[in-house]
Parts: sequence; structure tokens; C-alpha cells
Amino acid sequence: MFLDSISWNEQGLIPVIVQEEGTGIVLMFAWMNREALQLTVERRQAVYWSRSRQKLWFKGEESGHVQKVQDIRLDCDNDVLLLIVEQLGGIACHTGRYHCFFQKLEHDQWVAVDPVLKDPKLIYNQ
Amino acid sequence: MFLDSISWNEQGLIPVIVQEEGTGIVLMFAWMNREALQLTVERRQAVYWSRSRQKLWFKGEESGHVQKVQDIRLDCDNDVLLLIVEQLGGIACHTGRYHCFFQKLEHDQWVAVDPVLKDPKLIYNQ
Repeated sequence: MFLDSISWNEQGLIPVIVQEEGTGIVLMFAWMNREALQLTVERRQAVYWSRSRQKLWFKGEESGHVQKVQDIRLDCDNDVLLLIVEQLGGIACHTGRYHCFFQKLEHDQWVAVDPVLKDPKLIYNQ
Repeated sequence: MFLDSISWNEQGLIPVIVQEEGTGIVLMFAWMNREALQLTVERRQAVYWSRSRQKLWFKGEESGHVQKVQDIRLDCDNDVLLLIVEQLGGIACHTGRYHCFFQKLEHDQWVAVDPVLKDPKLIYNQ
């Protein structure tokens, strides 16, 4: 059983890197527990575990920015997942950006280099 | 100061996604502490924190598979890094593979789908 091969951490979680199919852009980073991964595989849509809210996070449930799963990879130590997804709506980040990694180190500072594509208020208050 | 902007976890660490420049391939996943990130920025070569060995890990020190850092990104929550690197030797994984994410979920099983390019014995016993 694929769930049993995974080295879950002390909290029963595994880190998940989310990459966009085609572009190869790293969209975001999240965590899954056993149930989240099981649901992700069954639905072919990303379901994460929200550590801050301590509950399942059905990505895109509110925003519509669902991630359709194309491929799931596990690393050499069985303790990190790589999810290859199709990102609906072209926005993965809760700030309204394409991806979460929009802060670039320039000299001694983090500079936001990618634009906000949609006002988060419009994403979450529909 | 860029180190102070980071939300280090309870262990003083931050997760790091390592992506190859050009190909966009996600090579590996690791952790950094404050000193590791400082050294990475100064040397423009990846230095991680090994949680298993509890010491700094100068990537490529033994294998020669050094990662030259082209770009460093921070996510929206200031708690995940994305490193864009040039991978010397074309092997990022300690198993002798191009990248660490070589296990693919097929039906109900993880299947190793990427080849070993070099025997790990030859990588680490030079």
C-alpha cells in the first residue's frame, strides 16, 4: 500500500512540493497527512493538511483555484512528495500571484518581483 | 537584514526546495539553518543543515556534486525557500540519480522510473 511506504514525520505529516505541469514552475509548498494524500489520489485533486487551521484543506474549494494532479513523486528517503499539477485559474498563491515564491533575494533584501494578478479580496469573497 | 525576515521553525530551520536552472527539474529538498543560508549566500554554493547528522552539510564536498546558486526565492509566508541552482556533475541524489524524486505513483505502488547514473560507491569512495 503506497501510504505505508511513506516516512511520516512526528506529526504524521509529509512536506509537499507543488510544481506546474508544462512550465515547471514551483507553485507552492504544503503538507499532507495520510488522509489528505489518500483523498488527493482518489480525487486527482490536491488536498492538503493545514497546520495553522489543523484541518484538511481542499485546495481551491473557496477560490476555485483547484489543482488537478497529473503525477505524484516520492523522494529517495520516502519523506518528501512532489506533486505535478494543472493549476486552474492561473493563481496558486493566496496573495493573488501565480506562485508563492515571488520574493527574490537581491543583495541583502527580499524584493517582490512577481505581480499580483487578482486582488485577494476578490478571490475569497466571491 | 534578509536572515531576520525569515520565519524559522521551532528548530531554527527552514525547508528548501532545490530546482535546476534551465530544465526546471526539482532536484531535491533539504533544510537550512541561519548559518547555512548565510554561507550559501556568501559562497553562492548550497550549504544545508543535515538534520540526521546535526551539522552543516556542504553539498558536493565529498561527491563533487556542488550546486552553484543562481537565484534564491522566499515564499509568501516567509517560511520556505526555493533555490535555483546549476548542478555540477549532473547528479543531485545520493542514490546516483539525476534528482531525488525518482519514485512515481503508479496505481497503488511507488515505482522507480529514473535510472541510476553512477554507482553511489563510486561517488562517495573516491
